[in-house]
Amino acid sequence: MLITLTTDFGASSPYVAALKGVMLSINPEVRLVDLSHAIGPQQVFQAAQVLAETTPLFPDGTIHLAVVDPGVGTSRVVVYAEIDRQRYVCPDNGLLSRLAEQQPPSKIICVTAKRFFRSPVAPTFHGRDIMAPVAAHLSLGLDPSELGPPLESVHKLEWPGAVKLANHVHGQVVAIDSFGNLITNITREQLAEAPTDTTVLVQCDGHETCGIFATYAEQPAMTLIALIGSNDNVELAIVDDSATKMLGIGVGTPVEICW
Amino acid sequence: MLITLTTDFGASSPYVAALKGVMLSINPEVRLVDLSHAIGPQQVFQAAQVLAETTPLFPDGTIHLAVVDPGVGTSRVVVYAEIDRQRYVCPDNGLLSRLAEQQPPSKIICVTAKRFFRSPVAPTFHGRDIMAPVAAHLSLGLDPSELGPPLESVHKLEWPGAVKLANHVHGQVVAIDSFGNLITNITREQLAEAPTDTTVLVQCDGHETCGIFATYAEQPAMTLIALIGSNDNVELAIVDDSATKMLGIGVGTPVEICW
Amino acid sequence: MLITLTTDFGASSPYVAALKGVMLSINPEVRLVDLSHAIGPQQVFQAAQVLAETTPLFPDGTIHLAVVDPGVGTSRVVVYAEIDRQRYVCPDNGLLSRLAEQQPPSKIICVTAKRFFRSPVAPTFHGRDIMAPVAAHLSLGLDPSELGPPLESVHKLEWPGAVKLANHVHGQVVAIDSFGNLITNITREQLAEAPTDTTVLVQCDGHETCGIFATYAEQPAMTLIALIGSNDNVELAIVDDSATKMLGIGVGTPVEICW
Repeated sequence: MLITLTTDFGASSPYVAALKGVMLSINPEVRLVDLSHAIGPQQVFQAAQVLAETTPLFPDGTIHLAVVDPGVGTSRVVVYAEIDRQRYVCPDNGLLSRLAEQQPPSKIICVTAKRFFRSPVAPTFHGRDIMAPVAAHLSLGLDPSELGPPLESVHKLEWPGAVKLANHVHGQVVAIDSFGNLITNITREQLAEAPTDTTVLVQCDGHETCGIFATYAEQPAMTLIALIGSNDNVELAIVDDSATKMLGIGVGTPVEICW
Repeated sequence: MLITLTTDFGASSPYVAALKGVMLSINPEVRLVDLSHAIGPQQVFQAAQVLAETTPLFPDGTIHLAVVDPGVGTSRVVVYAEIDRQRYVCPDNGLLSRLAEQQPPSKIICVTAKRFFRSPVAPTFHGRDIMAPVAAHLSLGLDPSELGPPLESVHKLEWPGAVKLANHVHGQVVAIDSFGNLITNITREQLAEAPTDTTVLVQCDGHETCGIFATYAEQPAMTLIALIGSNDNVELAIVDDSATKMLGIGVGTPVEICW
Repeated sequence: MLITLTTDFGASSPYVAALKGVMLSINPEVRLVDLSHAIGPQQVFQAAQVLAETTPLFPDGTIHLAVVDPGVGTSRVVVYAEIDRQRYVCPDNGLLSRLAEQQPPSKIICVTAKRFFRSPVAPTFHGRDIMAPVAAHLSLGLDPSELGPPLESVHKLEWPGAVKLANHVHGQVVAIDSFGNLITNITREQLAEAPTDTTVLVQCDGHETCGIFATYAEQPAMTLIALIGSNDNVELAIVDDSATKMLGIGVGTPVEICW
C-alpha cells in the first residue's frame, strides 16, 4: 500500500521524518512517497493546487497524507475523503478544494476516533499524532467508517479564477515553478476561440509577447514567451532563464491576453 | 529491513545518492528512508538533537545511518550502537550524545572489520566507503560483533541545558525550524511550577510575551507567542509568520522565563 | 526493480511527484530512489557528471531516469541506453556523455513507440508523458527493442578537461558541493608525477596553498587546502567553512597546480 506525503515542512525536514517513523511503526510494510514538502509555509492554496495536479496520477486507492495546517490545535477538524478513487487524510481547511471542484468526494469522514491517534496528542503537531497514524491504519485495511461520523462536504476556498470576456482573458500569476516560469490561472479552454498565430497579445506587468507557443525551445534564448504548460494553464517563460528573476514578477501579478 | 539516512549533504545531494547506491548494491531489498539531509554543515549538535527526536519513532530494529563527519579521515572511530531497540552506525563524534543521555547504549562496537568496507576507502568519504556498506551488511543480518571490538562508551558532547532557579528559567534558542519558529532548550518540566496564566513573562533579545500557549492559532496574526512545541520544549513563534526573520533572532540567543 | 530519478526540478518539486505517480500507476511494485533533483536548471553538464559518479554504484540492471531537458518538444530524441550493466532513459542531449566516454554503450535505442507513452503528450513535459512511462514499462520487463530502432551513438558534449604539461596542470572549478568545496576537473592521474610534499603549489584566483592533503581535518580551521576528493578529482576547501563563500569563487574559475 502506498502513502504519499505533502507538507510545508521543507525538503528533508525532521518533521517529515517524524511522520514517516510513526507510519512505519504502525505498518512496517507501507511504501512512502514524498509528493512535495516544498509548499510555502501555511500556503493552503498552493498545496490544494499541487494535490489536484499530481495525486490523480497515482494508482487507485493510494492514500495521500497532506499536512499544511495553519489552524492546528483549533476547532478545524481532520478529514478522510475519497475523491475519484484516491484517498486523502488532511485538515479540513481547504486543502481538498481544488480536487472537490473537479469531482465531488464520494465519501467524507470527520476523523474523531482517538483510539487510532498517538497519545498524548501535541496541540501543535496533529500531523504526527493524528493524521500519520490514521493514514497508517488505513494502509493496513482499516474501514474508514471506523474513524468517525460522515460529513456532508469539505471546506472550500474561493479560487481566484481567470475571467473570460469577448476577445480578452484577464487572469493572474498563481505560482512560480522551479525554473522560474510564471504559471497563470488562464486555462487552455479559455483560449479556445483565440487565433493560433501571433495576433494574440499577452501582457504582464508592462511586458508583452505575441502568440502562444508549444515549447520553450521555439524562440531564441532570453526571449519572453507564453505557452500552454503541462498542467493545461498558460505560463510565461524566459527561454533558458528565470522569468521571475529577470522580470521581478511574482504570484498575484495580473496577466491579460487579448486578440 | 529499514535503514534511515541522516546527513549534512543537503537535500537531494549526489553524495546521498552514492550512499543509497552502495547500500542497494549490497542489499537490493533494503528499504531506505531519508530522515534528514538538512543538517547544517558539520553541525554535530543539531544532528544529535534530530536523531534523538525522530529515531525513537521508528520500528524496533531500524538501522539509522548518520553521516555528519567533520573529522573524517582522522583518528575518530566509526561506531555501531544499540540504544532503546534502535540501531545506529555513525562516526563517534557526539552524534549519539543526546540519545545516550536518555538511555545508555546496550551495545557499542568499534567498527574496524575492513572486509565489510569498500576498497579503497577514500579518506574524505567514510560515509560511502565504510558506514553505508556496514549498515547494508547489518540489514542482511550480519552479527554486529563481527564488526570489531566492543567499546565502553560513545563520545559525549556537553549539552547547553537551560538553568532552573526559584521562579525563573534561563535558557537559549537552540534551533530554528522550517517555519522560522525559535526552539529553545527550556523543557516542559522546568516550567512545572509556573502558573498557567499570563503572569508568566517570556523575554528574548528585548522582546516580551506573556503566558505559555498551547497552539499557534490562539493569538492574532503577527503576535509573538511562547508555547510548548511538539518536542516538549518551549518555542517562540510569530503567529502566521517567521519569528527568526521578523525579529532577527538566531541560535544561541538567551531566553528568560520568570513568574 | 529499481528506478532512480535525476532532474533539475528542485528538491521536493511537484514535477517529481508527477513522474513518480505515472511510474507507480504503471508498475505499483517499482522501487523509486531519488538520485538528485538539485541539478541546476538545464545544466546538462552537471547532470552528466552526477550520473557518471553515482549510477555505477547501483545494482546491475537498475534503470536510471534522467530528465534535464532544455530542448523538450524540439527535434532532440529520447534514448534508452545500456552502459556497463546500468540502464538509462533520458533525452539524447549529452546527459550520457560522461558515462559513454568511460565505456561505450552496449545498446542504444531511439524511443519512438507511442504505445508506451501517455496520451496526449504535453510538448513541455516529456519526462512525465514519455520517459517516465517508458521507464516503468521497462521495469515490468519490456524488451527495449520494442521501444524503437537502434541508434549508433549518443549525443556527446565536449568536456572541459584539465591540461597536463611538464610540471604543471591547468584546470578549472567545475562544481561546488553542498559544503562549499570547489571541485576541479584535475584528476589524481594528472598529478601522478607531482611530489607528495608541500613543494606542490596550488593557485586559484589569487589564492595559494601548498601540498595536496588526504583529509579536511589535517590543517587548522579556516585554512585553504587542496585535496583529492572522493571522486578522485582535486578539490579546494576551507577547513570547517565554505570555500565558495569565503573566497567568492564559482564554477569556471581557473586552477593551476605546479611543482
